[in-house]
Amino acid sequence: MRHIVPPSVAALFFPLLLALTAPALAQAPVTKFNLPNGLEVVVIPDRRAPVVTHMIWYKVGAADETPGKSGLAHFLEHLMFKGTAKNPAGRFSQVVAEIGGQENAFTSNDYTGYYQRVPTEHLQSVMEFEADRMTGLVLTDDVVLPERDVVLEEQNQRVANNPGSRMGEQVDAALYLNHPYGKPVIGWRHEIEALNREDAIEFYKRFYGPNNAVLVIAGDVEVEALRKLVLATYGKVARRADFPARKRPQEPAQIVPRTLTLADPRVEQPSLSRSYLVPSFATAKKGESEALEVLAHILGSGSNSRLYQALVVDKRVATSAGAWYQSSGLDHTKFGVNGTPRPGVTLAQLEQDIDDVIAAVLASGVSAEELERTKSRLIAEAVYARDSQASLARWYGAALTTGSTVEDVQSWPERIKAVTAAQVQEAARDWLDKRRSVTGYLVKDAAAKVEKRS
Amino acid sequence: MRHIVPPSVAALFFPLLLALTAPALAQAPVTKFNLPNGLEVVVIPDRRAPVVTHMIWYKVGAADETPGKSGLAHFLEHLMFKGTAKNPAGRFSQVVAEIGGQENAFTSNDYTGYYQRVPTEHLQSVMEFEADRMTGLVLTDDVVLPERDVVLEEQNQRVANNPGSRMGEQVDAALYLNHPYGKPVIGWRHEIEALNREDAIEFYKRFYGPNNAVLVIAGDVEVEALRKLVLATYGKVARRADFPARKRPQEPAQIVPRTLTLADPRVEQPSLSRSYLVPSFATAKKGESEALEVLAHILGSGSNSRLYQALVVDKRVATSAGAWYQSSGLDHTKFGVNGTPRPGVTLAQLEQDIDDVIAAVLASGVSAEELERTKSRLIAEAVYARDSQASLARWYGAALTTGSTVEDVQSWPERIKAVTAAQVQEAARDWLDKRRSVTGYLVKDAAAKVEKRS
Repeated sequence: MRHIVPPSVAALFFPLLLALTAPALAQAPVTKFNLPNGLEVVVIPDRRAPVVTHMIWYKVGAADETPGKSGLAHFLEHLMFKGTAKNPAGRFSQVVAEIGGQENAFTSNDYTGYYQRVPTEHLQSVMEFEADRMTGLVLTDDVVLPERDVVLEEQNQRVANNPGSRMGEQVDAALYLNHPYGKPVIGWRHEIEALNREDAIEFYKRFYGPNNAVLVIAGDVEVEALRKLVLATYGKVARRADFPARKRPQEPAQIVPRTLTLADPRVEQPSLSRSYLVPSFATAKKGESEALEVLAHILGSGSNSRLYQALVVDKRVATSAGAWYQSSGLDHTKFGVNGTPRPGVTLAQLEQDIDDVIAAVLASGVSAEELERTKSRLIAEAVYARDSQASLARWYGAALTTGSTVEDVQSWPERIKAVTAAQVQEAARDWLDKRRSVTGYLVKDAAAKVEKRS
Repeated sequence: MRHIVPPSVAALFFPLLLALTAPALAQAPVTKFNLPNGLEVVVIPDRRAPVVTHMIWYKVGAADETPGKSGLAHFLEHLMFKGTAKNPAGRFSQVVAEIGGQENAFTSNDYTGYYQRVPTEHLQSVMEFEADRMTGLVLTDDVVLPERDVVLEEQNQRVANNPGSRMGEQVDAALYLNHPYGKPVIGWRHEIEALNREDAIEFYKRFYGPNNAVLVIAGDVEVEALRKLVLATYGKVARRADFPARKRPQEPAQIVPRTLTLADPRVEQPSLSRSYLVPSFATAKKGESEALEVLAHILGSGSNSRLYQALVVDKRVATSAGAWYQSSGLDHTKFGVNGTPRPGVTLAQLEQDIDDVIAAVLASGVSAEELERTKSRLIAEAVYARDSQASLARWYGAALTTGSTVEDVQSWPERIKAVTAAQVQEAARDWLDKRRSVTGYLVKDAAAKVEKRS
């Protein structure tokens, strides 16, 4: 069986990837229909090549786990490759490989997804496999326990051996006082170690089924033919009892700035990363999420951004500096700023310079030129992205599993176009409040005592 | 009906009170027996006056709440006064008042208790009332919703209007990354606001019953007569189905020092409080909890303590300074240090001086004189406390609902006597590690930016 890489875990640690979840095409001739068993189906025709991208998305992620069982959503994602009564472990992956296809799977806080890219003629076969494991998974301790070791090793490689990832976990844990987004998607190691077959089966039965899933097909397909194919495969999977509403514990008012310092001998260059608790597209008022998106780009995306210009180019205090915003999420998400000081510059100096850049936006807003340039670039990126079947499919899948609609995805360029300079300034004033933030200092040596205050 | 004050909520904010839960008497002729329905009964005879202290303790507290329902254990404590089919709301309290008794109730992370102190001849009546509401509570929206307003007002007075309490909540939330001890016992305000009758009834049925309770009677009673009385009252309450094991999500390895700054215009004098995550008596290895108790007293209890001598007397940088340890808890608890700088002294200076005092203990341990003086005083306090029926009853109740036994309570003085200087130093080295801590700065004015690092 091929090794399964959950990109969403990577996305957690490289937040810029998350920007991918928002933009999409205004013009894509996208069709959406529901099966009688509740499965939502999104079809994105793309006839340029006889290839199809097939993704099934479940409306369940790490934030839906029972407390004490962190990592279970991701563990189950691994276990979904362990076979059914009809298809023994590994056969699905083997078939995909034999026909020259690609496959992947991913888990985030809000969704879990499975992906294959195959020649069009093999789409039915992929659908049969995927429909079969939607409710037919069979797990024995023989396969569950070794796979838990695989996940533990993955945690070891991705987190335990990566100072930046360790810090990301700590910042999230400190940022969320009450909401399960504070837990790592991959899980706390001591909790992964205790996950077992019963946990996985219980979680699978609680969350997997056609009426809790979204099928996204992008590629060389015709809608009516596809509808028949979907009915003949997924249509046979029985509807499950209604799934519980996805109501997670919400955050209390955030009232204190927090800092934390992680010392790790493997750190080559110290760095600073700050996360603010902010609205996602799903929780924002109208126009606010779009304004945060524009704000993040003006502040810290690319070499024309304010942070880069001020810190790297003008003051030469940093080797890198940036900002990012995670728009996708059922509940409040994050807005981040980060920077790496040049050798000889302290994190405190760097932080002061970052704070000055942010303060300038709060005080004076952004220029018309910055606004237009940023909006044009964001919209152009969405258009360029049309070229990627997988990106398109992923945008729709992420949107439909985090409270958005096909229309929301399609209206994204128009909504970005409508953002005003006043909205950007207001978003900055409303949300870039240190009392809603955690600032993490990543250092090599605890003795440097960067947390010591004067 | 008399107003119910939950002392445990106060205890959360005045951690020194928590020291009361550990010490007790070596010589108390305490009897313990179980009823057939599972009720544990502890009898502490005290024949000095015809008065009896009656306490019923349930093995449920805020840490047993479902995520998103914070405050429910405490809310139910309030609702327990709202009557049964047999006794309308207020009658129990009215009877206690008419006979000149006292009553109270309290909720902590691990237990919920109800307390009456009455003339001995009225003990049976109290038992009948208490047994009746153990499973017979009747709740209607007419009483539930106004009581929720009472709790919200209590939250307002105890927390929202108290900068120190607000900071305590934030430090706890930052200290616990995964364990429910990070939630306030009184609840997050936005979650209290959403609690309702169904939540309360569900929680009551899930946790209240004779086989999840401990009855503690201290006072003018004879064991055999009491046993009959208990059988005739509580003995009639049917055993409930087994209660779930109290397994809470545990903490991951704590690896980063955290700080936070709360600015509140009502702050008259800035202050610093730091909490370390440490073992409770229930989670510690043998002798470790006792060593932490001795360490807390040497470091910061009273005017002979190291922190007081160094900061208040010698360096004159503080108007107060102290340390405390919470030994009681099913899971890992807290060790705290705190201080208030003299006007003109910064929190950073004060913190450096506190760190120096702690560093000296880590480096050189404690003296034989300090050790003996502290142990004698701790043991003496336990002996003096014998005078208080309520204190005695409370020690046993807290112990038996947090994983300890009658024998543990009784052996406390011997265990304290056995603590060595090496153990105290080892406990300090093992647990007073900033990576396991949160330091909170309480200031008047955010513009002072005490969190700014040099």
